[in-house]
Amino acid sequence: MLDKDKKIKVGIIGATGFAGVELVRILLKHPHAELSALGSVSFEGQAISGIYPSLAGLCDLVCTDSQSVIDKSDLVFACVAHGMSQEFAADCAKKSVAFIDLGADFRLESEDEYKEWYDGEFLDKELHEQAAYGLPELFRKDIRGKKIIANPGCYPTGAALALYPALAGGFVEKTGIIIDAKSGVTGAGRSPSQTTHFPLCNEGFAAYKIAAHRHTPEIEQSLSHAVGQELALTFVPHLLPINRGILTTAYAKLKEGVGLDEVYDYYENFYKNEAFVRLKSLGQTVNLRDVKYSNFCDLALHADERAGNLIVTSAIDNMVKGAAGQAVQNMNIIFDLPEGAGLDLIPPAF
Amino acid sequence: MLDKDKKIKVGIIGATGFAGVELVRILLKHPHAELSALGSVSFEGQAISGIYPSLAGLCDLVCTDSQSVIDKSDLVFACVAHGMSQEFAADCAKKSVAFIDLGADFRLESEDEYKEWYDGEFLDKELHEQAAYGLPELFRKDIRGKKIIANPGCYPTGAALALYPALAGGFVEKTGIIIDAKSGVTGAGRSPSQTTHFPLCNEGFAAYKIAAHRHTPEIEQSLSHAVGQELALTFVPHLLPINRGILTTAYAKLKEGVGLDEVYDYYENFYKNEAFVRLKSLGQTVNLRDVKYSNFCDLALHADERAGNLIVTSAIDNMVKGAAGQAVQNMNIIFDLPEGAGLDLIPPAF
Amino acid sequence: MLDKDKKIKVGIIGATGFAGVELVRILLKHPHAELSALGSVSFEGQAISGIYPSLAGLCDLVCTDSQSVIDKSDLVFACVAHGMSQEFAADCAKKSVAFIDLGADFRLESEDEYKEWYDGEFLDKELHEQAAYGLPELFRKDIRGKKIIANPGCYPTGAALALYPALAGGFVEKTGIIIDAKSGVTGAGRSPSQTTHFPLCNEGFAAYKIAAHRHTPEIEQSLSHAVGQELALTFVPHLLPINRGILTTAYAKLKEGVGLDEVYDYYENFYKNEAFVRLKSLGQTVNLRDVKYSNFCDLALHADERAGNLIVTSAIDNMVKGAAGQAVQNMNIIFDLPEGAGLDLIPPAF
Amino acid sequence: MLDKDKKIKVGIIGATGFAGVELVRILLKHPHAELSALGSVSFEGQAISGIYPSLAGLCDLVCTDSQSVIDKSDLVFACVAHGMSQEFAADCAKKSVAFIDLGADFRLESEDEYKEWYDGEFLDKELHEQAAYGLPELFRKDIRGKKIIANPGCYPTGAALALYPALAGGFVEKTGIIIDAKSGVTGAGRSPSQTTHFPLCNEGFAAYKIAAHRHTPEIEQSLSHAVGQELALTFVPHLLPINRGILTTAYAKLKEGVGLDEVYDYYENFYKNEAFVRLKSLGQTVNLRDVKYSNFCDLALHADERAGNLIVTSAIDNMVKGAAGQAVQNMNIIFDLPEGAGLDLIPPAF
Repeated sequence: MLDKDKKIKVGIIGATGFAGVELVRILLKHPHAELSALGSVSFEGQAISGIYPSLAGLCDLVCTDSQSVIDKSDLVFACVAHGMSQEFAADCAKKSVAFIDLGADFRLESEDEYKEWYDGEFLDKELHEQAAYGLPELFRKDIRGKKIIANPGCYPTGAALALYPALAGGFVEKTGIIIDAKSGVTGAGRSPSQTTHFPLCNEGFAAYKIAAHRHTPEIEQSLSHAVGQELALTFVPHLLPINRGILTTAYAKLKEGVGLDEVYDYYENFYKNEAFVRLKSLGQTVNLRDVKYSNFCDLALHADERAGNLIVTSAIDNMVKGAAGQAVQNMNIIFDLPEGAGLDLIPPAF
Repeated sequence: MLDKDKKIKVGIIGATGFAGVELVRILLKHPHAELSALGSVSFEGQAISGIYPSLAGLCDLVCTDSQSVIDKSDLVFACVAHGMSQEFAADCAKKSVAFIDLGADFRLESEDEYKEWYDGEFLDKELHEQAAYGLPELFRKDIRGKKIIANPGCYPTGAALALYPALAGGFVEKTGIIIDAKSGVTGAGRSPSQTTHFPLCNEGFAAYKIAAHRHTPEIEQSLSHAVGQELALTFVPHLLPINRGILTTAYAKLKEGVGLDEVYDYYENFYKNEAFVRLKSLGQTVNLRDVKYSNFCDLALHADERAGNLIVTSAIDNMVKGAAGQAVQNMNIIFDLPEGAGLDLIPPAF
Repeated sequence: MLDKDKKIKVGIIGATGFAGVELVRILLKHPHAELSALGSVSFEGQAISGIYPSLAGLCDLVCTDSQSVIDKSDLVFACVAHGMSQEFAADCAKKSVAFIDLGADFRLESEDEYKEWYDGEFLDKELHEQAAYGLPELFRKDIRGKKIIANPGCYPTGAALALYPALAGGFVEKTGIIIDAKSGVTGAGRSPSQTTHFPLCNEGFAAYKIAAHRHTPEIEQSLSHAVGQELALTFVPHLLPINRGILTTAYAKLKEGVGLDEVYDYYENFYKNEAFVRLKSLGQTVNLRDVKYSNFCDLALHADERAGNLIVTSAIDNMVKGAAGQAVQNMNIIFDLPEGAGLDLIPPAF
Repeated sequence: MLDKDKKIKVGIIGATGFAGVELVRILLKHPHAELSALGSVSFEGQAISGIYPSLAGLCDLVCTDSQSVIDKSDLVFACVAHGMSQEFAADCAKKSVAFIDLGADFRLESEDEYKEWYDGEFLDKELHEQAAYGLPELFRKDIRGKKIIANPGCYPTGAALALYPALAGGFVEKTGIIIDAKSGVTGAGRSPSQTTHFPLCNEGFAAYKIAAHRHTPEIEQSLSHAVGQELALTFVPHLLPINRGILTTAYAKLKEGVGLDEVYDYYENFYKNEAFVRLKSLGQTVNLRDVKYSNFCDLALHADERAGNLIVTSAIDNMVKGAAGQAVQNMNIIFDLPEGAGLDLIPPAF
C-alpha cells in the first residue's frame, strides 16, 4: 500500500463524458486518491463545474489535454471511444503510469473477436498481454499486480456476475443461455440523439442491437472461463426510460436433477466474501431502485421447474458497478488499497 | 350486421377501473355502439367524469349497480377481478345479453389449470363451453357467433401474436421457449400500492412473479394450439416505469437449417390481412412509443445465428390491444360489424 | 362551407417537426380535409412513416419540397422557424392558397416588437394587415374570412385564456400580473440537445429564459386587447420532464371588493359557448393529465383573500390546443366548417 | 464539541417514513453520530432493510417503539404527523435528550396561527419557548444551545432562502410577493394514494392546495423576520412527477430605482460564508438536477425590468436540505460539531 499520507494522483481522460464525471463524483471522496487533472477534447479550458453545475464548489478543475493528464498522474482512467485507448495505454506504460481503460480496447482476449466485433486491431500485442480484465469478483487474482486494466462493459458485468457461478458449479447447460438486459439511458452516453431525445425516449421502450451488441463476445468470454470452453449465447439489450441501472434477466437450462436450493447454496458460498454482491434470499427479487448510485450488484435466483430453467436476475448501477465504481475498485486492487475504499456509497431508498 | 341506425347498447361492469375507463374512451367514438350504463361498486352514484376529469363534458354518466348495467344493455363488458365474472356471464346468458369478460374466468379451457393457477372452479361448465377465447388474429373463426368471449390477458396477447406463427410454421422447437415481457404500470390497475407509489416505482425496474405469473398457462394454451400439443415455457414479467405498453421479447430455438427469411415470409403471409398487426421490415425494431393509445401490435423478427435462436419482439398498448381495444374488436366480430369499427386509433408520435 | 363531398386539400411545410406530425395525426381523421403533401427539407424523399414509425400503415406520404406542397394545396400549414414563413405566406397569397402559420412571423401586430424580440422585420406590411391572430375563443370574429392566420404560441394560448376574462371584466389590476408557466419537453421541438437529452432532462426541472422569452409580448398583446391599453407583465417559463402539456399559473391583483364568485360567474358566461374550454367548479383544480392529446383548455379559479390575488390555472396540451389542434380549429373557421370538426379528441385518463 | 471518540447516539421516531429513511442514509456515514434505535409503529419488529432493501447489509436495525428510541438516544429525530411531536418533545426534555422535530408542531411561533392552520394547540407553552426554528442560514444564532429544534418545512426552506435577503436588504416591496413552488413526489410521503399512483401521477402536473397550504404561515413568519413586521403573501405549490426536489420561483416587486447588481452583491455577501448555499452567477439558472441527494440550496437572481419584478429561483432536494439534511445540520449545530459534518453529499450529475 502507498504511504497513507501520500494520496494517489489520479487523472481522467474523457472526464466530461458520463463515466468520467461519475468518476469525479466518486474520487472526490476517495480517502487515498486525489484528482490530478481532467482531460477533455471538447471542453479543454473549461471548468468541469461549468459543464456539470452539480459540481459547483466541489470540483472546479479546468479541463486540459490528455498529455497533461498523463504527465500529472500516478494512474489514468480513460473514458474514450474504443480504438483510442491503446495509444494512451502505451504512453502510460512507457511512463510507468497505471492505466484503467473504461473503453473496450483491452476487454477481449482474442484479437480475432476484437476484429470481428470492433473492426479494429491490437496495436501492440505485448501491451494486451500485460492487461487484466477487471471484474474483481470473478478474476481478482489476475488483476493484482497489473498496471493495465480493462474495465468491463456495463452489460457484461451484470451478466457475468449473474451466471458465472451457475456455470462454474456445473448446474446449467452451456448451450441455450439467454441474456435479456435492460439499461437506463446514461448507458448511451453524453451525446444527444433522436434515441435519447426526451419526448421520443420517455414513455417508450425498445430492444436494440438484437443479437448484435458488441458486449456479446465479452459476456461469452467471462462465462467461458467458468466452464473452461467457449460458449455462445443470445444477448438482447433494451433501452429503459430511466437514468441509471441495468437489470439483467438471465436464463439457463438446469441440468437434470438440479434443485434451486443447491444452486443457491453455491452462489451464497461463491459470493460470501464479496462486499459488493448482495444475494437476495430465495423468493425475493432485485430492483434497480435499490442499487442506484452504489457499487452493489444485487442478485436473485429463481427456478422454473415446469420448463426446467434457472432464472437469475442481477441489478447494478451501470455508471457505478458497470463503469466508474468498478474502475475505482480496480484502482484499489492494483494500488493495494482496501478494495472498498471510496466505494461505501449508500443507495438512496428513492 | 345490426340495423345501422340502431346502435348497440353497451354497458360496462367495473367501469371505473383502468380497463373500464379505457373502454369508455374507445366506445364514446364507436360509430355503432352507445354507452348504456356504467357499473361501479366503489363509485355508485358518482359521475365517471368526477372520477376521471379527463372525461368532463364528454361522458357524465353516473355509475350504477351491475344489475342495471345488464338490464340496459345488448352487450356487457366486465372488468372485474377473476372469480366474479362467471355469475355475471350466467345472468347475461339468461337474458340473451352478450358478454365480454376482460377478466380471467373464461380464458383457460382446462378447469384443472384454472384451479391450479387461480384457485377457483368452473361454476357452470356449459357456460364455459359456450365461451370463445377472443384473440381474433389467431382464433377468429371460434369467436364468430359466440355470446360469451374471454378477452385475452395483456401479456398473453403480446406473447401469442409474437410466437404463434413460428410454431405453427414449424420453424422452432416446442421446448426451450422464453417469454421475457415488460409492462407499463397501468397493468397493475387503479388501486395504489407500494409497488406503484410514484417515488418507489419511478426510476426503478424489476421482474416480478418470476415463472409464477397467472398468464403463463394462458400463453401456453394459445401456443399449444399452434402445434397441436401441450407445451411448457418460461414466462417472466417485469414492471416498466411508464404508463402504457407491453414489450415482449420472445426467444425460441430455430430448427436446424431454418433461415430468417423463410420465417419472415411466413409471418408476412400469416398476418397479411390483419389490420392491427404491423410486421416491421427485417432489420427494424419495435418500440412501445409507436403503438401507444392504439390497437396495433407491432412485430419484429431477428435471428441469432451464432446461438441458433429466433427472437421475436412485439409491442402493444396493454390497455388497448391488451384489454379494451381487443374487447371492442371482439364486440365488432360477434355483432358482425366491421372488425375495425371504432378502432381507427392513431398512435401519437410522442 | 365547401361542398361536403369535396375535401380540402391540406399541405404541411415542416411536416416532420413535432407540430407537423401532430397535424398529420389530427388531419388523418378530419372529415373534411385530406393531406395533399408533406414538406420537409431534412427528410425530402423519405416517407413520414419512416421518420415516425407510429404512422406506419396510416400515412406513408413521401416528403417533398415546399413549392410542391403549396402547389397541391387549398391550405398550407407552416411549421418552420420564425423568419421563414413570410415568404411562404406571400407565395400562398399570390396563389390564393390559405395559409396558417404555426411560427411567430405574423403573431405580433407591432413591427417594433417583432424587431425587438425576434430581430426581424415585416417583409410585406400589407400581408401582415391581412393576417389574423388565431385564438378563436378570444378573437373569433377577426379570424373569419381571413386567408392568413397567425396560430398563437403555446404559452400565449394558455396564458391568454386564463386571464383575458378577468381583465376584460375589470376584476383585476392591469399591473403586477405574473405568468408562471410549465411546459412539457415537446415544446422544445424535434432537435435533440443537452437540455432535452434524457438523462439530463429526466428528474430535473428548471426555469429558463426568465423574463426574456419571446412569448412575452404575445401574451401582453392578447391581454392588452382585454383592457384596451398596453400592459407589461412578468412571464417565466419552466421545462417539465414530461412529454406534453402546459400548465399556467397566472396571478393578478384583485381589485378592492371583488369576490371570487362574481369572477367565476363572469368566466362561466364568457366561455359558456366554447366547446374547448372546460371551466372547473370552484374548489377543483386542473391537471395536465386531463387534457393530454386533446384540444381542451381546462381552467380553474382561486382567490387568495389574505394577499388579495386572483389565481387562475390553465391546462392545455401544448401540441394540440397550443399548436396543431388550434391550427385545425382555425382552418375550420376560415373554411366555414364546424369549428370542432376533426377535434373531437378524447384525452385518455392515463 | 463532544469527545471525538464518543459518537452521539441518535434515534429516529418514524424511521420508516421517507424523511426517516433519508436520515438513516445520511447518518450511516456521519463521522460523529451512530444510530441507536429506529422507531416505527407500522413496522415494529421488522428490519429497516426489509422495508427498504436498498439498505440491505448497510443497516439491518430492527424497528422498535418510540419509548425505546428515546431511552437509547442522546438525540431524537421525530418524523411524525403534526400533533404527535409535542409529547415526544416533552418526554425528551424531561430526560435531557435533544429533540429535532421534522414535523410541524414547533415551527410556528404563534399559537393562533397553529390553531388556524393546523387545528391544534400548544400543549406546553414553555416547551415552545425553548424551541428554535432550525433554518441555520437565517437563524443560526437562535439555534445554538437549544435542545428542541423545529426543522423547517420543505417549501419554507426553499422560499425563505430565496427571498429573505431581498427583504432584509430593503430591495423589494413587502406586499405582492408570490411564491410559485414545484415539488417532487417524495414530498407526499410514503403512503400511496390516487395522487401518487404512478399512472395518474406520471406525465401529469397540477397545482394543489392553492393559497391554502399549511406552509404559507411558516414562509410568512421567516420573511416577516427579515423586515421586522408581518407580511402576507401568496403561495401556490405544484406536484412535479419526479422523485426529489423543490424548485421555488419567487416574485417580488423591486423598489423604485433598485438595480439587479446591487441586489446580487447583497445576496453574495449575505451567503458568502454559507457552505450549503450556491449563488449562481448572473445570467445562470438553477436546476433541481444539480442539487439532488445533496444539502445544497442553489439560488439564481433575475430582474424583469419591464414589469419591475425581482425573480429569485431556488433549488433544493426536499428530502435533504428540505428535511433530513437540514435536520442533521441542526444536530451538528446544537452538538457543537462542524456544521457540515456528514453533509458532504455530492449531487450526482444525473
